[in-house]
Amino acid sequence: MTESELQELLLALVPPEESRLLLARKHLDTLAHPPYSLGKLEDIAARLYAISDYPIRERKLLLQNRRVIVMAADNGVFAEGVAATPQRVTADQTINMLEGKTGVAVLAAQYGADLQVIDVGVNAELHHPKLIDRKIRRSTSNLARERAMTREEALQAVGVGVEAARTAKAEGYNVIGVGEMGIANTTTASAVLACLCGQAATEVTGRGAGLTDEAYQKKINVIADAIDLHKPNKNDPIDVLSCVGGFDIAAMTGVYLGAAAEKLPIVIDGFISVVAALCAARLSSTAVCYMFASHVSFERGYHVAIKELSLSPCLNMDMRLGEGSGCPLMFSLMDGALAIFNNMATFEQAAIDTHYLEPIKTKSAY
Amino acid sequence: MTESELQELLLALVPPEESRLLLARKHLDTLAHPPYSLGKLEDIAARLYAISDYPIRERKLLLQNRRVIVMAADNGVFAEGVAATPQRVTADQTINMLEGKTGVAVLAAQYGADLQVIDVGVNAELHHPKLIDRKIRRSTSNLARERAMTREEALQAVGVGVEAARTAKAEGYNVIGVGEMGIANTTTASAVLACLCGQAATEVTGRGAGLTDEAYQKKINVIADAIDLHKPNKNDPIDVLSCVGGFDIAAMTGVYLGAAAEKLPIVIDGFISVVAALCAARLSSTAVCYMFASHVSFERGYHVAIKELSLSPCLNMDMRLGEGSGCPLMFSLMDGALAIFNNMATFEQAAIDTHYLEPIKTKSAY
Repeated sequence: MTESELQELLLALVPPEESRLLLARKHLDTLAHPPYSLGKLEDIAARLYAISDYPIRERKLLLQNRRVIVMAADNGVFAEGVAATPQRVTADQTINMLEGKTGVAVLAAQYGADLQVIDVGVNAELHHPKLIDRKIRRSTSNLARERAMTREEALQAVGVGVEAARTAKAEGYNVIGVGEMGIANTTTASAVLACLCGQAATEVTGRGAGLTDEAYQKKINVIADAIDLHKPNKNDPIDVLSCVGGFDIAAMTGVYLGAAAEKLPIVIDGFISVVAALCAARLSSTAVCYMFASHVSFERGYHVAIKELSLSPCLNMDMRLGEGSGCPLMFSLMDGALAIFNNMATFEQAAIDTHYLEPIKTKSAY
Repeated sequence: MTESELQELLLALVPPEESRLLLARKHLDTLAHPPYSLGKLEDIAARLYAISDYPIRERKLLLQNRRVIVMAADNGVFAEGVAATPQRVTADQTINMLEGKTGVAVLAAQYGADLQVIDVGVNAELHHPKLIDRKIRRSTSNLARERAMTREEALQAVGVGVEAARTAKAEGYNVIGVGEMGIANTTTASAVLACLCGQAATEVTGRGAGLTDEAYQKKINVIADAIDLHKPNKNDPIDVLSCVGGFDIAAMTGVYLGAAAEKLPIVIDGFISVVAALCAARLSSTAVCYMFASHVSFERGYHVAIKELSLSPCLNMDMRLGEGSGCPLMFSLMDGALAIFNNMATFEQAAIDTHYLEPIKTKSAY
């Protein structure tokens, strides 16, 4: 997408109608339970109703069609020795996902979600009937030496994400989640987060898929040096993505923006996913209205990013797999939230038939 | 149950076989992902396999039959003005549960669980075809003035819980959860917890279903004064239950013990449920091997109790409804954990067919 197409999209974003949110909350308050005693289940249900255009009175909103969108790409910074896993694993696991073998594939199947995998920059020629090819090029450049990508490439990747969200909406999906596959992408995500928040690399960098102390220190240094080298403009997320990001993170940013444009609820997975969410939020704070936080990633930078978004995740599973693996778990919680909204009795309906109950007002305790 | 029957049960408890736990963990380590990157999903799966007698090699364990057991009872301490809700609501909601109208009923239905409701002391004559009548008497006594129940009654209530777990096992259930319905039972639960942990009432007492500042202070005073009055023996959980507990908490304690005796995984709900779990743990630490923590209750005492149990809940939903409402959510997470164990490819199986992938070792990035 072009610079002006992005600006056009951002200017057109609108939050869900406040009146719908209030109406949904009003219904929840009539349910036979202490007010807000179902906590985040109530928040989720109210927000889902507010986002949808489903008649609130009918209480029949369901998330029948759900999809996890996975952006797969390689990162040139891999050459610096910042990852514990061979780069080839990006390609291997991209295919394995489509074959139903990886963590997210298994969890998506378990919770009734489809999986869409998009190649935006895997460093291999991949051929699989289910793979969507939107490859920008094979791997970004090594951000330790040059910009990871041009500004045009960053915009192109964002455009791929926007298109994925629009397609999901057009195909009738009610909710999407967004994940990634890309060796070395905790390095790029940490670098982007450090820029956006003006934080030191040490504060936002974790050990990814299992680094030694030495490699971990190396990773921190690579990030800090790259930020010194490129001096990205923290007020321009596209510049930040171009300098130190990845094709996956840029494309995921686009998915969040596209979801907001299409009024489609979107679930954040773990660390990489939340950093992309923050990029989208910095482009337009309205995008956050459509985001739902699933789980607290074990990766330390997660906490920084989710706090910036003022979102509160539901799950605390010590997960750090990525792939979008937290999204299907969240879809299941969303089902529960809507079940509460749709099926619980109101105080009025809960007035039980008196033949079940002998009056107790004459008894000793009263 | 008698004192000696309880002792017999406690002495017969054994933990799951360590060798099965190790074998299960070994399988998880062969799955194509960074070790332990699925966090608690892996812990849950390994523990469920270890508890079961299902052949680990076959990878087919499922939790097809799940039940939430709800103990309903009234509390004499209600007379002190420690609850914001009329006592009659215990009876009303006990019936409403069986009619599928309450929070736990809706969530149980959503996640494919049965609901069993047992009257162990509701202050009303209840008649409902699905209600199980094990009423000890109509409400405990007012613990502010006298012991809540006799030691014999406490043992009788524990026995009801043990029987419920044994019945669930005999009927083919693979996992159970335990909840409650009883106005004023955050007061009894706080009192029991304060005794067991030797903590001040202020440290373990919350606002329940919504108390004013004045009523909250009153609640704390009632608990502190009752502990002074009865001086329960903190090393004797049955004494603690008799002095300041409730029929619901005593019966729930029995469910945990029965689950351990029957090698049945059991899910803890919120505050009342975790206090009963702690009573069971103080009677036999082996009982904890069969417990799974679902969600962090909003009620402050929860944190004290769960820390004593060294368990780590999966969900952080700000829920404080009780009823066992967190259990069905946890059943759904357990399904996901077993899906990972059963369906994810091993590193060996993940070696993909080479026709999908052009070799990349000759390319620039290598």
